[in-house]
Formats: sequence, structure tokens, C-alpha cells
Amino acid sequence: MNFPTPGFTGSTIDRADNLRLDQERISALLNHDDARLLRLEALDPLLGEDDRLAWQAMSELAEGAVPLFLGLDGESPLFAPLTRMAPGPTRGWGVFGLIGRMEGGDAALWATARSLIEWHNRHGYCGVCGSPTEIFRAGWARKCDGCGAEHFPRVDPVVIMLAEHDGKVLVGRGLNYPERRYSALAGFVEPGESIEEGVARELLEEAGVRVKSVRYVASQPWPFPASLMIACIAEAESAAVVIDRTELADLMWVDRGQVAAALAGAEDAPFQAPPPFAIANTLMTRWLHGLDMLAQGRGPA
Amino acid sequence: MNFPTPGFTGSTIDRADNLRLDQERISALLNHDDARLLRLEALDPLLGEDDRLAWQAMSELAEGAVPLFLGLDGESPLFAPLTRMAPGPTRGWGVFGLIGRMEGGDAALWATARSLIEWHNRHGYCGVCGSPTEIFRAGWARKCDGCGAEHFPRVDPVVIMLAEHDGKVLVGRGLNYPERRYSALAGFVEPGESIEEGVARELLEEAGVRVKSVRYVASQPWPFPASLMIACIAEAESAAVVIDRTELADLMWVDRGQVAAALAGAEDAPFQAPPPFAIANTLMTRWLHGLDMLAQGRGPA
Ligand SMILES: [Zn+2]
Ligand SMILES: [Zn+2]
Repeated sequence: MNFPTPGFTGSTIDRADNLRLDQERISALLNHDDARLLRLEALDPLLGEDDRLAWQAMSELAEGAVPLFLGLDGESPLFAPLTRMAPGPTRGWGVFGLIGRMEGGDAALWATARSLIEWHNRHGYCGVCGSPTEIFRAGWARKCDGCGAEHFPRVDPVVIMLAEHDGKVLVGRGLNYPERRYSALAGFVEPGESIEEGVARELLEEAGVRVKSVRYVASQPWPFPASLMIACIAEAESAAVVIDRTELADLMWVDRGQVAAALAGAEDAPFQAPPPFAIANTLMTRWLHGLDMLAQGRGPA
Repeated sequence: MNFPTPGFTGSTIDRADNLRLDQERISALLNHDDARLLRLEALDPLLGEDDRLAWQAMSELAEGAVPLFLGLDGESPLFAPLTRMAPGPTRGWGVFGLIGRMEGGDAALWATARSLIEWHNRHGYCGVCGSPTEIFRAGWARKCDGCGAEHFPRVDPVVIMLAEHDGKVLVGRGLNYPERRYSALAGFVEPGESIEEGVARELLEEAGVRVKSVRYVASQPWPFPASLMIACIAEAESAAVVIDRTELADLMWVDRGQVAAALAGAEDAPFQAPPPFAIANTLMTRWLHGLDMLAQGRGPA
């Protein structure tokens, strides 16, 4: 497949956001015969023998846990259990093996649940006044007991990009990466900047690379804890780099043959590519196969 | 100009994020002869006779106010004053007249300051434990006195889109819009969905429109209070619409001539276009002039 769908996308669930404020409807859905509760182990998914997400009856909801409404799977209402726990790790290395076995729609649904649960556990108090907050909108908001402020789940936009120059792209090695792993550079979008400006700033900060243009490629949600990954290709002015040693262990320009070898998992590849469910993998794949097609106006939708 | 730059972009300031944690350097910058403090009236910009942002000496910092480091303008360190105030309005109709007079880079710098100030004022307490938080990283983070959690400025990704069908695009009239105003539909990206999925969901929810494909067009920061607007064109399956009356007063398919008339401010235009600094305006303009060029592989960078 030349144009893989980004990981954590492809859920066919109807989020039915119009029902979230309707407590009567939500009550009825909680008591629906086909209502299902996502099985989790702390924040990680539990998979069946078919590698599908495991579900249980609503009666299995643990004492003190609160059901979050994920949406409707046909007629079946789906919920995730919110339990109080310390904030999880920001990186999910441990769960990557499981994610690699999941189909996209299941991974997307689990990602939604994980991000929501993490957000609730980090927002039990109001940022405005410090009072406790309470869940509302069937799990899609919290309201302050003190000042009445409403708080909505946070999604952090992150730009992730390949700089391109002279037929090569720039990949970097983070300080805590698995052995031989290189990936696209990335960073959070800050207040007051566009996607394109964020890409240009991150490449300049981390790699000393100035860009002439930025082109959007694809996006994915990333549930560690709740990022929106926005993948771009940037045309670099030159191949000169100045590495930011506080962020990166190494930087390397790689050509099409090298990227193809890495994506194929070849033993003699110059680096190990990020896993298929990471959008850095999608980005490398589309650079290899897709952007020429895009330029001819017949690219992927 | 066929391809206007989105509003609130184009700042030439170096954010110098590598200095933010260096308290000695920040102290030196605060005492720099050329250090300048942004003048604000509550959250609104103050403009000089040349419609440029007004600045003052650091000695004008009000008692109790904290300087936020915006970055370096050449050698000049720029700061914005953080004062305690109640959260501002989420919409900025009142300030739109001023914004329309500002040049892009100034608007971007003010947008950064406004978003940061609002964020600080809404995050004086820790969401995790309810303790007071203190400013650090020269204004780009807060740290909890109680549990030590670090909190970073929030940026909310929003998708804003035109559905396209049969040579026409879909524009909508929000419940609180100025008279005759129609714009692109929009909504917050939720945890667990991509940009493309957010576009498809919002169009289905608000207009009953199903989409076949989604194409990214442009982005901008929007400082009410801190959105990242992500503008897209979506190919609709049909022209049938089901209006969500809780969100919209009206929906209308408009053709190229009608969009051109609206953008030109023609009296006989069927609607009033959003202002030039809103990315909905950029989106309409690019749809009118730009996407054909994109399809031919020679579009704007
Ligand atoms: Zn409160
Ligand atoms: Zn705390």
C-alpha cells in the first residue's frame, strides 16, 4: 500500500456529540442491552485473541469509576471507564507492541479513551480558582464547583516534519530513542503561530535549517497524552545543519533508497524507521511514493 | 493579491525559546537598554498613529505585573505585561476594527501576547491538585507549588472548512453573527481524531453533509483565546443539507461569482464575507483563485 492511512484514524464510531448534554438519553444508553464498556489495564488496551479490543458489560464497571460516553457503534452505546489514577507516562513505549497488533479503528477508539481518561485525571481542579471540578457532557467536559468555569478536553497540536533538500530528507535521533531509531523532527505548536511557522521554527531551533516553503501532508491523533500530530514536508534552503544537543543525539540526511530500506526493515538500512502507526512512518512513505503524485494533481484524497 | 497570507502570521520575531529557562540571560534582557514592553488596554492592542503596536520602557511595568518574554526583535528584547484580570471574552468583535488596521507581524505578536496572558489568568491553580501555580520559563509555563506538575500554554486546534459540490461551496450563518455575515463552518478537533476526521464530523453534525475527501489549505493562530485554525476544503457527496439549529441560523451554497462578489464587498453580494484577517476569508479567496493552481502543481508555497 503506497498511501497508508495514519495510525489511530479510521474509527467508524458515531461520536453522537448531540447526545452528550442530554442526561436522559445518556441514562437510557447506559442501561441499553447492547451497551459495552471498554476493558483497560490501567491506561493500556486489553486485546482478545483476534487482537480486537476487549469489551465487557456495563455491570462490570468498578466501584467509583465513571463511564465516559465514546459514541454509538451502530445501535450499541460504547463507554470507557474513568478511574482515578496518577498521570500516566507521556511516552508509550511499553504499549507499542499492543498498538502494532490493533486495527486502525480500534486503535483510534482506544486513543480517544486514553486521552480523555488522562485529561480527567489531570483536571480534577479548576485552573481559574482551584476548586474541585465535576464531570459533565457525558465525559466531554468538566465544570467548576466554585466559579462555574467550564473546561474542555485538551488537544495539543504538534508539528512533525521532514526537511527536504537535493533529493534527501532530514531525520533525527532523539536522546531517548531505541537503538538505531531515527524519525522526523517534531515540536509543539505555540500560541501565536501557524502550522507553517511552527515547522519553520522547530527546524531552525533543532537543526539550524531555514525553510523556503512548507507543505502539509497528513495528520493523526497521538494519545500520549493527547496530541494532534500535523505532518509536513519543508523545503530547506541548504543542507547545513546545527544540531541542538539538548534535544537530539544526531541528525542525518537520507536519500530515497535509504528511506525505502528503512521502511522495509532491511538489515543494511542506515536506520530503523518509526513504527507504521506513527505518522513519521506515514510521512516517510508518502515522501517516497506520494508527493510526486500530489504534484501531478492526482494524489491521495 | 491572489494568495493572501493568513491573518496573525508573518511575525519576524525570534522567539528564542532556548533562553526561556536561562534566568540569568532573561534578567539581562529585562535590563537591556533596548528592552520594550508591549502597551495594552486590558487585552486589546494600543496602536500608534502609524497603526503600529505601541511600546514603552520596561520601567513602565505596572506594580504587580509580570513581564512575559515574547522574543528578540533583532537585538531588542520584547516583553508583554501579565496582569491579573478576569478571563476576557471568547470572541473579539470589539477589537476587530483595530486588528483590521494592523500589519500581519504586529497582529501575530499581539496575538501571542493575548493568548499567553489569557492562559496565565486561567491557570493560576493546578488542575492535578488544586494548589497555586507559579510562572516559569520566562512566561511560557507554570509550575505547581504543591505537586510540582508543569503546565504549558494551551493551543486548541480548530478545523474550519468549505464543503464543495458541483462548483459551489457551503457557507453558514452562526447564531450571533453580524448582519448578512456568512462564513466557513468550524469546530474544535476532539481527542482521538485527525484533522480530516474532524472536518468530516463537523460537516456531518452541523450541516448533514458527508464528505468524500478533505484537502488542507492553510492555518493561522486565532487569539480568542488561543486557537490554531486549520482551514480545509472538503468534497461533499451531495448538496443535501440538514441544518443544526443549535449552532447555525442558515446554510447556503454559493458559486464562484457570489464568493467573488462577497470578497470584493459588493453591495449586491448575497452575503458579507468574514474580514481579511480571518482565515475563512483566506479560504474563500484560495478556493476562488488558488486550488486550480494547486491541482496543476504550481500552487502557493
Ligand atoms: Zn473555578
Ligand atoms: Zn499540583
